[in-house]
Amino acid sequence: MKKLINKPEDVVKEELEGMALAYPDLIKIHLDPDFDYRADAPVKGKVALISGGGSGHEPMHGGLVGHGMLDAACPGAVFTSPTPDQMLEAAKMVNSGKGVLYIIKNYTGDVMNFQMAADMARDEGIDVDTIIIDDDVAVKDSLYTAGRRGVGTTVLAEHILGAAAEKGYTLQELAALGRKVNINGRSMGMALTSCTVPAAGKPTFELGEDEMEVGIGIHGEPGRKRMKIMTADEITEILATSIIDDGPYTRTLAQWDKDKGDWVDVEVTDPPFKKGDEVLAFVNSMGGTPDIELPIIYRKLHEICEKKGLKIVRNLMGRYITSLEMQGCSITLLKMDDELKELWDAPVHTPGMRWGM
Amino acid sequence: MKKLINKPEDVVKEELEGMALAYPDLIKIHLDPDFDYRADAPVKGKVALISGGGSGHEPMHGGLVGHGMLDAACPGAVFTSPTPDQMLEAAKMVNSGKGVLYIIKNYTGDVMNFQMAADMARDEGIDVDTIIIDDDVAVKDSLYTAGRRGVGTTVLAEHILGAAAEKGYTLQELAALGRKVNINGRSMGMALTSCTVPAAGKPTFELGEDEMEVGIGIHGEPGRKRMKIMTADEITEILATSIIDDGPYTRTLAQWDKDKGDWVDVEVTDPPFKKGDEVLAFVNSMGGTPDIELPIIYRKLHEICEKKGLKIVRNLMGRYITSLEMQGCSITLLKMDDELKELWDAPVHTPGMRWGM
Repeated sequence: MKKLINKPEDVVKEELEGMALAYPDLIKIHLDPDFDYRADAPVKGKVALISGGGSGHEPMHGGLVGHGMLDAACPGAVFTSPTPDQMLEAAKMVNSGKGVLYIIKNYTGDVMNFQMAADMARDEGIDVDTIIIDDDVAVKDSLYTAGRRGVGTTVLAEHILGAAAEKGYTLQELAALGRKVNINGRSMGMALTSCTVPAAGKPTFELGEDEMEVGIGIHGEPGRKRMKIMTADEITEILATSIIDDGPYTRTLAQWDKDKGDWVDVEVTDPPFKKGDEVLAFVNSMGGTPDIELPIIYRKLHEICEKKGLKIVRNLMGRYITSLEMQGCSITLLKMDDELKELWDAPVHTPGMRWGM
Repeated sequence: MKKLINKPEDVVKEELEGMALAYPDLIKIHLDPDFDYRADAPVKGKVALISGGGSGHEPMHGGLVGHGMLDAACPGAVFTSPTPDQMLEAAKMVNSGKGVLYIIKNYTGDVMNFQMAADMARDEGIDVDTIIIDDDVAVKDSLYTAGRRGVGTTVLAEHILGAAAEKGYTLQELAALGRKVNINGRSMGMALTSCTVPAAGKPTFELGEDEMEVGIGIHGEPGRKRMKIMTADEITEILATSIIDDGPYTRTLAQWDKDKGDWVDVEVTDPPFKKGDEVLAFVNSMGGTPDIELPIIYRKLHEICEKKGLKIVRNLMGRYITSLEMQGCSITLLKMDDELKELWDAPVHTPGMRWGM
């Protein structure tokens, strides 16, 4: 195993310590339980946003803490859900009294633990709501997921909600906005190579020298199809058309009903993309893919969107939701409106995403 | 070969096209000869900064074009010097009348071609000066280099000079500042894995499963030593102490003498780091190393600098000068003073580096 680490069991702790040393003006860290949080938390008068998940997807989530994005992030071990005590302690640390929104990617462990943490936080008098991101069109159910997995739209939601929180949106308004972002965002990824979880010491899966996995999950979960390697243009065509041509997607998602004081299942339907839609186009590296290759993907994606009548009005290109050193990419399209465009353009200052300040 | 590309011979052109589509407000591109340049060039009243070099080191240089950094960047084929006609055409495109500074990494082909372009541009009445970056302490001479190679300090110089150019520094002042940055910056890198040039189709060099190359060049040139893999802390110790304990380094560098109208060899000596120095610490990924590993390097580097009496007053961590998908890292330390700190903090807005705007 070739990695710039010390002991596999120390990776997450040492990464947090390094982040705190590198970005002392932006973030502080709490160890046992582990999380990082805004150096100026709690931010008076603002709803706090917390996300988290297995490590290995950096900069998401720990590197996306700061002004205009998350208030705290809870890292699990690599590709492993964080625990409710991390999420609870993070909520206590960053809650300003305006409440906490948990942003959850749809993996069974994450959803279960965040919902448990939400219940525990409510018992301690913290107003908590949750949103689930399940935007991956590749597969219906997966290794760690019932329903679609949560991927690239999470990064976009974290900034859009972060900007809205800075503007004074209430907890209820933020939860509604988060659900709107989720139903308007769709993603799909692919891998050219596998990746190695430090504690495992060997590749998560095997791919032949001439093979790729289309529809891969961010933990190396199987995708739609293992295929012979294709050109960048052909790969972009598969990912983009899978996203754009995806029909309405209906499922039930658990939401907290404050009046009932209980979780309720709500039926949610994602509207399909249609000609004339304005979109944010997000081309993401899985981690190991070099920067020279991403614009080649973007170039073809731009052509396909034009052909399909989608107008790219904003974009994001780079490494934001990764799978360690996996080579490959994912594409996310998010349907935009005036509210989302204004929030997207708002300043953000985190280790991993920064503009306007 | 596993890459997100179409034909190997189209990589650079398609990457430029993708960049232009993704960042239309920031950059424009010129094809045949190839370069990208600021969308608002020529910027009135400002000296223009141009760099370039082989492709494969993205975001350097093409992704570092914009406010507070480069005015244009000339990409060669992967790991191959660009040609004088690219550099000349770029100079003609971005020169506002205040002159052009070529920022050159010390590789024989780059130096020769940029000096030839400088001569050609002068023949066309453009005031041109050049600076050479040769900051890699690893080896004295190398596969493509007489003297030390130019690496991480280049990225720092490009922003510091870019900020100074925005502030109205003259061509002469910028050349002097560039030479000051170069003598105060030192770097060293290492690789865990090789990388594959698209046109070659096979890895540039071979490394055993338990081997690493310490002092690697950014084109995979041999370094100081091939060793068994060590921990992140041990690797950081080797790189950091090689940099910090490097003594005075003296060599002759070609500079343009305007009065003589000719190139002259000038003896240049880098002063060593000493206790009490303030430094910028730059931890750079070679491209394939995941973001989770960089803070582990930074954590140890911080400890070593403290022990050696160097105070880290600014830092940069991420992928800036890469070698395609190579796994590994480099460390750069740049001695700072008030002028450099103020320039470093100035706004920058490029695809690959952005703050303050």
